[in-house]
Amino acid sequence: MLDDQITDDVQPEDGDYEINRGVFGSVKDALQADNAAALAMALAPLHPADIADLMEQLSSDDREDFVRLYGSEFDGEVLSELDEGLREDIISYMAPEVFAEAVRELETDDVVDLIEDLDEPHTEAALKALDDDDRVVVEQSLSYPEESAGRLMQRELVVAPEHWNVGQTIDFLRNQDDLPEQFYHVILVDPRMRPTGYVTLGRLMGSPRATAMTEITEESFRTIPVLQDEGDVAYAFNQYHLISAPVVDEDDRLVGVITIDDAMAILDEEHEEDILRLAGVGEESSLSDRVIDTTKRRFPWLAVNLVTSILASLVIAQFDKVIAQFVALAVLMPIVASMGGNAGTQSLTVAVRALATKDLTTSNVWRVIRREAIVGLVNGVIFAVVMGVVGVLWFGTPMLGVVIGVAMVVNLVVAGLAGVMIPVTLERLDIDPALASGAFVTTVTDVVGFFAFLGLAAVVLL
Amino acid sequence: MLDDQITDDVQPEDGDYEINRGVFGSVKDALQADNAAALAMALAPLHPADIADLMEQLSSDDREDFVRLYGSEFDGEVLSELDEGLREDIISYMAPEVFAEAVRELETDDVVDLIEDLDEPHTEAALKALDDDDRVVVEQSLSYPEESAGRLMQRELVVAPEHWNVGQTIDFLRNQDDLPEQFYHVILVDPRMRPTGYVTLGRLMGSPRATAMTEITEESFRTIPVLQDEGDVAYAFNQYHLISAPVVDEDDRLVGVITIDDAMAILDEEHEEDILRLAGVGEESSLSDRVIDTTKRRFPWLAVNLVTSILASLVIAQFDKVIAQFVALAVLMPIVASMGGNAGTQSLTVAVRALATKDLTTSNVWRVIRREAIVGLVNGVIFAVVMGVVGVLWFGTPMLGVVIGVAMVVNLVVAGLAGVMIPVTLERLDIDPALASGAFVTTVTDVVGFFAFLGLAAVVLL
Repeated sequence: MLDDQITDDVQPEDGDYEINRGVFGSVKDALQADNAAALAMALAPLHPADIADLMEQLSSDDREDFVRLYGSEFDGEVLSELDEGLREDIISYMAPEVFAEAVRELETDDVVDLIEDLDEPHTEAALKALDDDDRVVVEQSLSYPEESAGRLMQRELVVAPEHWNVGQTIDFLRNQDDLPEQFYHVILVDPRMRPTGYVTLGRLMGSPRATAMTEITEESFRTIPVLQDEGDVAYAFNQYHLISAPVVDEDDRLVGVITIDDAMAILDEEHEEDILRLAGVGEESSLSDRVIDTTKRRFPWLAVNLVTSILASLVIAQFDKVIAQFVALAVLMPIVASMGGNAGTQSLTVAVRALATKDLTTSNVWRVIRREAIVGLVNGVIFAVVMGVVGVLWFGTPMLGVVIGVAMVVNLVVAGLAGVMIPVTLERLDIDPALASGAFVTTVTDVVGFFAFLGLAAVVLL
Repeated sequence: MLDDQITDDVQPEDGDYEINRGVFGSVKDALQADNAAALAMALAPLHPADIADLMEQLSSDDREDFVRLYGSEFDGEVLSELDEGLREDIISYMAPEVFAEAVRELETDDVVDLIEDLDEPHTEAALKALDDDDRVVVEQSLSYPEESAGRLMQRELVVAPEHWNVGQTIDFLRNQDDLPEQFYHVILVDPRMRPTGYVTLGRLMGSPRATAMTEITEESFRTIPVLQDEGDVAYAFNQYHLISAPVVDEDDRLVGVITIDDAMAILDEEHEEDILRLAGVGEESSLSDRVIDTTKRRFPWLAVNLVTSILASLVIAQFDKVIAQFVALAVLMPIVASMGGNAGTQSLTVAVRALATKDLTTSNVWRVIRREAIVGLVNGVIFAVVMGVVGVLWFGTPMLGVVIGVAMVVNLVVAGLAGVMIPVTLERLDIDPALASGAFVTTVTDVVGFFAFLGLAAVVLL
């Protein structure tokens, strides 16, 4: 039954997970008819994550109607699935008691995730909605720095003294009243609460009662420092195939546990950040942002690009007399710059990705730089020959072919070098290499490209 | 102890997971001294994933020495952690009996992952190394299409009839001899082996013996069709916070199970593919590739770029007379093209990412296109004013300011439109939008930018 619903409503013919147009249509109809019952019926089969996606796809007017009409049905989980940029708006449309109820429905780690992006009045409202126990837990989490393991971890733990055997542990678990909803390991601790290993529930179930817990621990065990950056936490889960990992404080004492589903969400966020930053788009950019927000967010990098392209124009301006005499130079010069920009972006992207996966390190950086220069040289020579021939055929001036060929080689080698050295330098300076590298690299390839081509032309052709 | 080693050897001072220079140095020393014992000692504390990373960072000569010297110590898991582009090389350095032993050490799903990228002779060698049971399992997996759920799933399952209660299930599990190494749920099936729900081991442990299994199933339950694309599988895990999901055939019968760690690895690969494709770098590109491979891989998109930039040059060539008369045009024209290219890349990247996360759908595509055009218009007008003023101040010709301003507005609106419409069109044609969009978008912005600027100049200034 559940399966049928899913197949009909959210998985259309091609089997992917795009929200079905039919559902979208019913929701729009319900909004237009101001019909709360119809809206609730259309949403009933959807997962909260799909409801959140659907809200993101509505126009902002429809979104306000949606929240009003959805009313007290509003599922707390939808809030935590929403795009961070949109939450504040949605919450401001909600009646205070609906918001309070939605917050109460959430697990404490989701409340933390929700609260950390809210403005002061909403934060207070959310905290006030919680009962005392939960509020203490949430406030403790918020006391750790943003984007640290401390913010990610859950505090509900299942631990056992390391000297226990399987039978003792099973009996203990069977007698617990409130085991956490999600847990995959029993963490073994020493008398000072320092984790020393963990046992999967599957292994526990499959072992004889007399087996010592220490005999069936997993090799994959490793702990996460509570102050570790969440990006590094995600890296560790992916690199070491962890399912869950105990989090420890500075004294190596157990303070929480992080599970892979949270790590996977962070990995996805980090990727989104990288890809958007590489394109000069501020993070948290999404299709649901308003025009004004999007415009503002894209503006800074366009402004940087304006300044750097004016810089390139200043280089061209130095050679106005040659250009006036040989207009062919004006026709051909964008080719040299464009090829350099492209080659630079290729090197840059590989380097930024390699820095993110920790494959580009101090141990191999010089070899990588040399390699990029050689790749630039080889491709440069090939395209130099092609463009040289094109130049001669097109304009009938052999020296023009030579000039564009040499400029091409120079610019592609420089592109390879700049593509690695700029992100590596930014990383050393503790600046995210994805953030600013693009603008730097294309500035270098534009300036070098125009200068090499026009400068050489001035020497050779005048 | 384990923890100390990790802290000392792979987690340097700043707490991240970059391989320590000290370890890298010891390995290089051992290679130089041709000392197998020293190499084994340096590698002993490392996780197979870190050993693989370390090998990727060596030069290809060092790599060959490494494999020879590592010899029979070679851990099968290192093979499955290696970059796909590198495996073939590494295996060709290995003695056949070492390779066979390494394959035997692996889980069957890792063997599948390894084999699917190998050439014929190595595939056969790997299959021959397996014992009969494992070979059958591997060959069955390989019978599913590449990049499908069938290739990802493991076949070791823990199922229970749906009418069982907690006590029966626990007794059954306790009496099993060979439970899978990793499992998180007991899958409930009907008499025809169709999965109808699942129960987490934690919930099972925490429930009274008499409780019916159907009473404690998880809401998150959903099945994955065996032919589903692995990218969609990863999406489902991330979207619906799944930990494991049963895989079913066309008759909805249970054939395997996929766990989140595999889904996370796929998510990471898909991201890598997107980011590299957007930059015009072939997939499977990594720092460990040889110069010749890297050169070959980057060549095609540079060649495409050459053709498209020649196209842009042809546009410029139409206006050579205007340029000869007003060299300022040659100085300023790259600015218009560059701003358009940048704005186009911004829209494009947001659109490609939104397509990947299924946030850009047929339901909202027109609204998104309209929005991008408006964002382009607003930023276009702002930069038109700025550049108009710069143009006038720099060259003292008011009409030149007007021309560059108008061209800027036109190009930024076109950039916004092209940035969304091109990837959406490619997606409809079943071409990966990340793959070819960049070249198309910048061609459009170059051609439109040069044409609008020079064309307008020809009309206004001549």
